Amino acid sequence: MLELYHSGLTANSLKVRLTLAEKGLDYVSHFIDIHAFEHHRAAYLALNPDGQIPTLVHDGRPLTETTVINEYLDDAFPAPPLRPADAMARAGMRRFSKLVDEMLFPSVSMLGWQRRVRLTVKDLAPDALREMLARVPLEEKRDKWAKAARPEGFAAEELELSRRNIAFFVVRMEEALCEDGPWIAGADYSLADINALPFLYRLDLLAPGIVNEAETPHVVDWLTRIQARPAVIDTYSVSEEAPPRVGEAADGSLIPPA
Amino acid sequence: MLELYHSGLTANSLKVRLTLAEKGLDYVSHFIDIHAFEHHRAAYLALNPDGQIPTLVHDGRPLTETTVINEYLDDAFPAPPLRPADAMARAGMRRFSKLVDEMLFPSVSMLGWQRRVRLTVKDLAPDALREMLARVPLEEKRDKWAKAARPEGFAAEELELSRRNIAFFVVRMEEALCEDGPWIAGADYSLADINALPFLYRLDLLAPGIVNEAETPHVVDWLTRIQARPAVIDTYSVSEEAPPRVGEAADGSLIPPA
Repeated sequence: MLELYHSGLTANSLKVRLTLAEKGLDYVSHFIDIHAFEHHRAAYLALNPDGQIPTLVHDGRPLTETTVINEYLDDAFPAPPLRPADAMARAGMRRFSKLVDEMLFPSVSMLGWQRRVRLTVKDLAPDALREMLARVPLEEKRDKWAKAARPEGFAAEELELSRRNIAFFVVRMEEALCEDGPWIAGADYSLADINALPFLYRLDLLAPGIVNEAETPHVVDWLTRIQARPAVIDTYSVSEEAPPRVGEAADGSLIPPA
Repeated sequence: MLELYHSGLTANSLKVRLTLAEKGLDYVSHFIDIHAFEHHRAAYLALNPDGQIPTLVHDGRPLTETTVINEYLDDAFPAPPLRPADAMARAGMRRFSKLVDEMLFPSVSMLGWQRRVRLTVKDLAPDALREMLARVPLEEKRDKWAKAARPEGFAAEELELSRRNIAFFVVRMEEALCEDGPWIAGADYSLADINALPFLYRLDLLAPGIVNEAETPHVVDWLTRIQARPAVIDTYSVSEEAPPRVGEAADGSLIPPA
């Protein structure tokens, strides 16, 4: 039996939900409200001591880290395969997934926290904030929450570096798609595409200075193709297991601050 | 044909050389002198645009990123296997390798740069330093070299955070070895052990406050066992392809500054 502890339409939860959907795997859904900080509560920490979302539980054994979970799902449930059979293409898949984890994810995440996530902490009273921070298991994440809670949020130079990192990733991806393609790891749709999507979704609309027809036509085409996949449309839809994100309406548009 | 562009006894080169040695694979060795900044020269950048060491070339096709290279070697040359057959153990192997890449490696690297690598840049004239920095392809690495070149090197709080990160990793590893073992991913010696070793080698001697018999007996035992493996002893020995590191004698002891 598969169980997923997740937060619906947030990027890291989408990564694993996409893989489960592409494989047509059934699972028991446990929604964790990260804006109520449920992932820092004892019940969840018993499952994942890092207090990170999501956690997959397979026959009672918990698995964490989305990139690792996704490759596990392809090891444990090989059909349909989401890794290329060729060793060199597989290495390309892993290299891109690593660049997503180490450069794209933290950069997109910081911009998302600046835009939305800090809405949930910026008005906490000092005592409530201290109490909340004290329960965050990982030092790095504690620092991130502390910065998000400042009136200005993250520093301007950090936000600029994040934008440069996203642009760097997109240029690399454009080169890869132009050289091989039509998917990131070559001929086959793979975990590299799934792992990248939650951080690039609708980026042609959100950041047209970075993703656009003139400079990154292959990335635009990739977005069009991947966003038309039935499993992707399903996974990104608001549903019982995936309510609208904080600060967003059901169609993904921003709700203006009151 | 396999070719390895590497810098001998530096951690990331050791990671791949260990895997090649465990598998008994022959390769053409190309030594890159990182202290002469050969990895930022056009000849090397043609192979690896990131200017990172090492690069493996298999039948003319370059591969980068050590964790990805190591898993590629196990895909392309399956005997002897360096990944557990069980999917859950394999996920554990990948999770630990990821923690090495994202937490252990940057932390150990910063301390090593503070102790040794900056010896090669701290006396560069301002013009020579500017010229050298301008050739570093990755912004993150450029910043690291710029910090290393300052009279004091890295900031005290960064060095402290690195020490805390190493201690965090070691505690996690102690728990994993205690729960399963005798290797990081369980019963089988795997890439998780190889990927971690270059950042933990002799750590019981170098950092007895972090690795010691009283607090981390399983990590001490792991070090003893892995450092006795013939492939490990070979790979760590000074040889034609692996000269002593800058600032160190052939036995690994520090050369006092003149």
